[in-house]
Amino acid sequence: MKLGRLNHIGVATPSIAESIRYYREVMGATKFHEPFDLEAQGVKVCFVDTPDAAGELGKGTQIELIEPLGEDSPIAKFLEKNPAGAQHHVCYEVEDIEDARKWFEEMGKRILGPTRIGAHGTPIFFLHPKDMMGQLTEIMETPKGDAHWSN
Amino acid sequence: MKLGRLNHIGVATPSIAESIRYYREVMGATKFHEPFDLEAQGVKVCFVDTPDAAGELGKGTQIELIEPLGEDSPIAKFLEKNPAGAQHHVCYEVEDIEDARKWFEEMGKRILGPTRIGAHGTPIFFLHPKDMMGQLTEIMETPKGDAHWSN
Repeated sequence: MKLGRLNHIGVATPSIAESIRYYREVMGATKFHEPFDLEAQGVKVCFVDTPDAAGELGKGTQIELIEPLGEDSPIAKFLEKNPAGAQHHVCYEVEDIEDARKWFEEMGKRILGPTRIGAHGTPIFFLHPKDMMGQLTEIMETPKGDAHWSN
Repeated sequence: MKLGRLNHIGVATPSIAESIRYYREVMGATKFHEPFDLEAQGVKVCFVDTPDAAGELGKGTQIELIEPLGEDSPIAKFLEKNPAGAQHHVCYEVEDIEDARKWFEEMGKRILGPTRIGAHGTPIFFLHPKDMMGQLTEIMETPKGDAHWSN
Protein backbone atom coordinates (compact mmCIF):
# COMPACT_ATOMS: atom_id res chain seq x y z
CA MET A 1 0.00 0.00 0.00
CA LYS A 2 1.19 3.48 -0.84
CA LEU A 3 0.50 6.40 1.47
CA GLY A 4 -1.98 8.80 -0.09
CA ARG A 5 -2.88 12.37 0.63
CA LEU A 6 -3.71 13.49 4.15
CA ASN A 7 -7.33 14.14 3.21
CA HIS A 8 -8.32 15.66 6.54
CA ILE A 9 -7.67 15.90 10.22
CA GLY A 10 -10.68 15.14 12.39
CA VAL A 11 -11.27 17.64 15.19
CA ALA A 12 -13.89 16.92 17.82
CA THR A 13 -15.87 19.89 19.05
CA PRO A 14 -18.73 20.43 21.48
CA SER A 15 -20.27 22.84 18.95
CA ILE A 16 -19.73 23.11 15.21
CA ALA A 17 -21.27 26.59 15.30
CA GLU A 18 -18.67 27.70 17.85
CA SER A 19 -15.86 26.04 15.86
CA ILE A 20 -16.92 27.80 12.68
CA ARG A 21 -16.73 31.12 14.54
CA TYR A 22 -13.31 30.13 15.89
CA TYR A 23 -11.86 29.09 12.52
CA ARG A 24 -13.28 32.21 10.84
CA GLU A 25 -12.51 34.85 13.47
CA VAL A 26 -9.39 33.48 15.13
CA MET A 27 -7.70 31.34 12.46
CA GLY A 28 -8.80 33.30 9.39
CA ALA A 29 -10.44 30.46 7.45
CA THR A 30 -12.73 31.56 4.62
CA LYS A 31 -14.27 28.41 3.18
CA PHE A 32 -16.78 26.37 5.23
CA HIS A 33 -18.85 23.59 3.71
CA GLU A 34 -22.45 23.02 4.73
CA PRO A 35 -22.67 21.02 8.01
CA PHE A 36 -24.57 17.73 7.78
CA ASP A 37 -25.51 14.75 9.94
CA LEU A 38 -23.62 11.51 9.41
CA GLU A 39 -26.13 9.41 11.30
CA ALA A 40 -24.40 6.07 10.69
CA GLN A 41 -21.47 7.39 12.68
CA GLY A 42 -23.43 9.37 15.24
CA VAL A 43 -21.84 12.68 14.38
CA LYS A 44 -22.61 16.02 12.79
CA VAL A 45 -19.85 17.02 10.38
CA CYS A 46 -18.53 20.21 8.84
CA PHE A 47 -15.51 20.50 6.54
CA VAL A 48 -13.29 23.56 6.56
CA ASP A 49 -10.86 24.09 3.67
CA THR A 50 -7.23 25.05 4.10
CA PRO A 51 -5.11 26.20 1.15
CA ASP A 52 -2.55 23.94 -0.52
CA ALA A 53 1.06 24.95 -1.24
CA ALA A 54 -0.12 27.05 -4.21
CA GLY A 55 -2.60 28.89 -1.98
CA GLU A 56 -5.56 27.14 -3.58
CA LEU A 57 -8.55 26.28 -1.43
CA GLY A 58 -10.22 22.92 -2.02
CA LYS A 59 -7.03 20.95 -2.57
CA GLY A 60 -5.29 21.30 0.77
CA THR A 61 -5.86 19.02 3.74
CA GLN A 62 -9.27 19.76 5.22
CA ILE A 63 -10.35 20.13 8.82
CA GLU A 64 -13.31 17.87 9.61
CA LEU A 65 -15.23 19.27 12.55
CA ILE A 66 -17.21 16.57 14.32
CA GLU A 67 -19.88 17.18 16.93
CA PRO A 68 -21.75 14.40 18.73
CA LEU A 69 -25.26 13.51 17.55
CA GLY A 70 -26.83 12.60 20.88
CA GLU A 71 -25.43 11.03 24.04
CA ASP A 72 -24.65 7.69 22.44
CA SER A 73 -22.35 9.25 19.88
CA PRO A 74 -18.96 7.53 19.67
CA ILE A 75 -17.31 10.89 20.35
CA ALA A 76 -19.41 11.76 23.42
CA LYS A 77 -16.92 10.12 25.80
CA PHE A 78 -13.98 11.65 23.98
CA LEU A 79 -15.51 15.09 24.56
CA GLU A 80 -16.13 14.34 28.22
CA LYS A 81 -12.37 13.97 28.56
CA ASN A 82 -11.68 16.92 26.24
CA PRO A 83 -14.57 19.33 26.83
CA ALA A 84 -13.07 22.17 24.77
CA GLY A 85 -12.53 19.84 21.80
CA ALA A 86 -9.36 18.16 20.56
CA GLN A 87 -7.64 16.47 17.66
CA HIS A 88 -9.55 13.24 17.14
CA HIS A 89 -8.29 11.34 14.08
CA VAL A 90 -6.27 11.54 10.88
CA CYS A 91 -7.56 10.43 7.47
CA TYR A 92 -5.30 9.25 4.67
CA GLU A 93 -6.41 8.43 1.13
CA VAL A 94 -5.70 5.17 -0.66
CA GLU A 95 -6.28 4.12 -4.27
CA ASP A 96 -8.39 1.06 -3.48
CA ILE A 97 -10.23 0.55 -0.20
CA GLU A 98 -10.52 -3.24 -0.44
CA ASP A 99 -6.81 -3.66 -1.14
CA ALA A 100 -6.07 -1.41 1.82
CA ARG A 101 -8.39 -3.37 4.09
CA LYS A 102 -6.64 -6.62 3.19
CA TRP A 103 -3.26 -4.98 3.69
CA PHE A 104 -4.08 -3.96 7.27
CA GLU A 105 -5.91 -7.22 8.06
CA GLU A 106 -2.90 -9.26 6.99
CA MET A 107 -0.77 -7.26 9.42
CA GLY A 108 -3.23 -8.02 12.21
CA LYS A 109 -4.33 -4.41 12.63
CA ARG A 110 -7.73 -4.07 14.27
CA ILE A 111 -10.29 -2.56 11.90
CA LEU A 112 -13.22 -0.89 13.63
CA GLY A 113 -16.35 -2.20 11.92
CA PRO A 114 -17.19 -2.72 8.27
CA THR A 115 -16.11 -0.61 5.35
CA ARG A 116 -18.78 2.04 4.96
CA ILE A 117 -19.52 5.30 3.18
CA GLY A 118 -17.82 8.23 4.86
CA ALA A 119 -18.37 11.96 5.01
CA HIS A 120 -17.02 12.51 1.50
CA GLY A 121 -19.27 9.83 -0.01
CA THR A 122 -16.48 7.33 -0.62
CA PRO A 123 -15.75 4.07 1.26
CA ILE A 124 -13.81 4.36 4.49
CA PHE A 125 -12.81 2.38 7.56
CA PHE A 126 -11.14 3.18 10.84
CA LEU A 127 -8.16 1.48 12.51
CA HIS A 128 -7.67 1.07 16.24
CA PRO A 129 -5.34 3.73 17.66
CA LYS A 130 -3.52 1.14 19.79
CA ASP A 131 -2.35 -0.55 16.59
CA MET A 132 -1.46 2.74 14.89
CA MET A 133 1.05 4.31 17.24
CA GLY A 134 -1.65 6.07 19.23
CA GLN A 135 -3.58 7.61 16.36
CA LEU A 136 -7.16 6.79 15.44
CA THR A 137 -6.64 6.42 11.70
CA GLU A 138 -9.26 6.64 8.98
CA ILE A 139 -8.51 5.17 5.57
CA MET A 140 -10.53 6.61 2.71
CA GLU A 141 -10.66 5.75 -0.97
CA THR A 142 -9.54 8.72 -3.07
CA PRO A 143 -12.66 10.31 -4.54
CA LYS A 144 -12.99 10.03 -8.29
CA GLY A 145 -13.68 13.37 -9.92
CA ASP A 146 -14.91 16.26 -7.84
CA ALA A 147 -17.72 14.50 -5.98
CA HIS A 148 -15.91 14.88 -2.67
CA TRP A 149 -16.06 18.64 -2.69
CA SER A 150 -19.82 18.76 -3.00
CA ASN A 151 -20.38 18.90 0.75
CA MET B 1 -5.02 37.12 9.42
CA LYS B 2 -5.68 34.63 6.67
CA LEU B 3 -5.43 30.91 7.31
CA GLY B 4 -2.45 29.43 5.51
CA ARG B 5 -1.51 25.91 4.56
CA LEU B 6 -1.59 23.12 7.11
CA ASN B 7 2.18 22.75 7.02
CA HIS B 8 2.34 19.71 9.27
CA ILE B 9 0.72 17.71 11.99
CA GLY B 10 2.97 17.05 14.97
CA VAL B 11 2.93 13.46 16.18
CA ALA B 12 4.67 12.56 19.44
CA THR B 13 6.45 9.22 19.49
CA PRO B 14 8.57 7.32 22.00
CA SER B 15 10.92 6.40 19.15
CA ILE B 16 11.45 8.07 15.79
CA ALA B 17 13.16 4.92 14.54
CA GLU B 18 10.06 2.89 15.37
CA SER B 19 7.79 5.52 13.81
CA ILE B 20 9.81 5.51 10.59
CA ARG B 21 9.36 1.74 10.39
CA TYR B 22 5.66 2.17 11.08
CA TYR B 23 5.10 4.86 8.43
CA ARG B 24 7.16 2.90 5.88
CA GLU B 25 5.90 -0.63 6.51
CA VAL B 26 2.34 -0.04 7.71
CA MET B 27 1.30 3.27 6.11
CA GLY B 28 3.34 3.03 2.92
CA ALA B 29 5.23 6.32 3.19
CA THR B 30 8.28 6.61 0.96
CA LYS B 31 9.93 9.94 1.78
CA PHE B 32 11.62 10.47 5.15
CA HIS B 33 13.81 13.47 5.87
CA GLU B 34 16.94 13.20 7.98
CA PRO B 35 16.10 13.26 11.73
CA PHE B 36 17.73 16.07 13.72
CA ASP B 37 17.82 17.48 17.23
CA LEU B 38 15.89 20.68 17.90
CA GLU B 39 17.62 21.36 21.19
CA ALA B 40 15.89 24.69 21.88
CA GLN B 41 12.62 22.76 22.05
CA GLY B 42 13.95 19.63 23.72
CA VAL B 43 12.92 17.31 20.91
CA LYS B 44 14.35 15.19 18.15
CA VAL B 45 12.44 15.74 14.91
CA CYS B 46 11.84 13.85 11.68
CA PHE B 47 9.60 14.99 8.82
CA VAL B 48 7.70 12.50 6.69
CA ASP B 49 6.20 13.67 3.39
CA THR B 50 2.68 12.91 2.27
CA PRO B 51 1.55 13.56 -1.32
CA ASP B 52 -0.62 16.53 -2.26
CA ALA B 53 -3.81 16.29 -4.35
CA ALA B 54 -1.70 15.88 -7.51
CA GLY B 55 0.20 13.00 -5.91
CA GLU B 56 3.34 15.07 -5.55
CA LEU B 57 5.56 14.51 -2.53
CA GLY B 58 7.07 17.58 -0.90
CA LYS B 59 4.00 19.78 -1.23
CA GLY B 60 1.45 17.95 0.88
CA THR B 61 1.00 18.40 4.61
CA GLN B 62 3.92 16.75 6.40
CA ILE B 63 3.98 14.55 9.47
CA GLU B 64 6.44 15.88 12.06
CA LEU B 65 7.58 13.06 14.29
CA ILE B 66 8.78 14.36 17.65
CA GLU B 67 10.68 12.32 20.22
CA PRO B 68 11.78 13.68 23.61
CA LEU B 69 15.40 14.76 24.02
CA GLY B 70 15.91 13.76 27.67
CA GLU B 71 13.58 13.63 30.65
CA ASP B 72 13.01 17.39 30.80
CA SER B 73 11.63 17.49 27.28
CA PRO B 74 8.32 19.35 27.04
CA ILE B 75 6.81 16.24 25.46
CA ALA B 76 8.03 13.78 28.11
CA LYS B 77 4.86 14.20 30.21
CA PHE B 78 2.66 14.01 27.14
CA LEU B 79 4.22 10.64 26.31
CA GLU B 80 3.76 9.41 29.88
CA LYS B 81 0.03 9.84 29.30
CA ASN B 82 0.24 8.50 25.73
CA PRO B 83 3.02 5.92 25.80
CA ALA B 84 2.37 4.61 22.27
CA GLY B 85 2.50 8.14 20.86
CA ALA B 86 -0.33 10.46 19.81
CA GLN B 87 -1.30 13.49 17.80
CA HIS B 88 0.41 16.40 19.52
CA HIS B 89 -0.09 19.66 17.61
CA VAL B 90 -1.14 21.24 14.32
CA CYS B 91 0.95 23.81 12.44
CA TYR B 92 -0.54 26.40 10.10
CA GLU B 93 1.44 28.78 7.92
CA VAL B 94 1.02 32.55 7.89
CA GLU B 95 2.47 35.21 5.61
CA ASP B 96 4.05 37.29 8.36
CA ILE B 97 4.87 35.96 11.81
CA GLU B 98 4.93 39.34 13.57
CA ASP B 99 1.54 40.33 12.20
CA ALA B 100 0.19 36.95 13.30
CA ARG B 101 1.65 37.35 16.79
CA LYS B 102 -0.03 40.74 17.18
CA TRP B 103 -3.30 39.30 15.84
CA PHE B 104 -3.41 36.59 18.50
CA GLU B 105 -2.13 38.86 21.27
CA GLU B 106 -4.86 41.39 20.59
CA MET B 107 -7.41 38.61 21.01
CA GLY B 108 -5.90 37.68 24.37
CA LYS B 109 -4.68 34.28 23.20
CA ARG B 110 -1.85 32.90 25.31
CA ILE B 111 1.37 32.58 23.30
CA LEU B 112 3.83 30.06 24.71
CA GLY B 113 7.20 31.81 24.81
CA PRO B 114 8.97 34.03 22.31
CA THR B 115 8.90 33.74 18.56
CA ARG B 116 11.76 31.44 17.63
CA ILE B 117 13.21 29.47 14.75
CA GLY B 118 11.33 26.23 14.21
CA ALA B 119 12.11 22.90 12.62
CA HIS B 120 11.80 24.29 9.08
CA GLY B 121 14.18 27.19 9.79
CA THR B 122 11.48 29.86 9.78
CA PRO B 123 10.03 31.79 12.74
CA ILE B 124 7.30 30.07 14.73
CA PHE B 125 5.36 30.32 17.97
CA PHE B 126 2.91 28.10 19.82
CA LEU B 127 -0.52 28.97 21.21
CA HIS B 128 -2.06 27.50 24.34
CA PRO B 129 -4.48 24.66 23.54
CA LYS B 130 -7.01 25.98 26.08
CA ASP B 131 -7.38 29.13 23.98
CA MET B 132 -7.51 27.20 20.69
CA MET B 133 -10.45 24.84 21.16
CA GLY B 134 -8.26 22.14 22.65
CA GLN B 135 -5.51 22.09 20.04
CA LEU B 136 -1.89 22.99 20.70
CA THR B 137 -1.39 25.23 17.65
CA GLU B 138 1.89 26.20 16.03
CA ILE B 139 2.00 29.23 13.76
CA MET B 140 4.83 29.27 11.25
CA GLU B 141 5.90 31.83 8.70
CA THR B 142 5.62 30.40 5.18
CA PRO B 143 9.13 29.52 4.04
CA LYS B 144 10.45 31.63 1.19
CA GLY B 145 11.77 29.52 -1.66
CA ASP B 146 12.60 25.89 -1.07
CA ALA B 147 14.68 26.25 2.08
CA HIS B 148 12.08 24.40 4.15
CA TRP B 149 12.54 21.17 2.29
CA SER B 150 16.24 20.96 3.02
CA ASN B 151 15.79 18.86 6.15
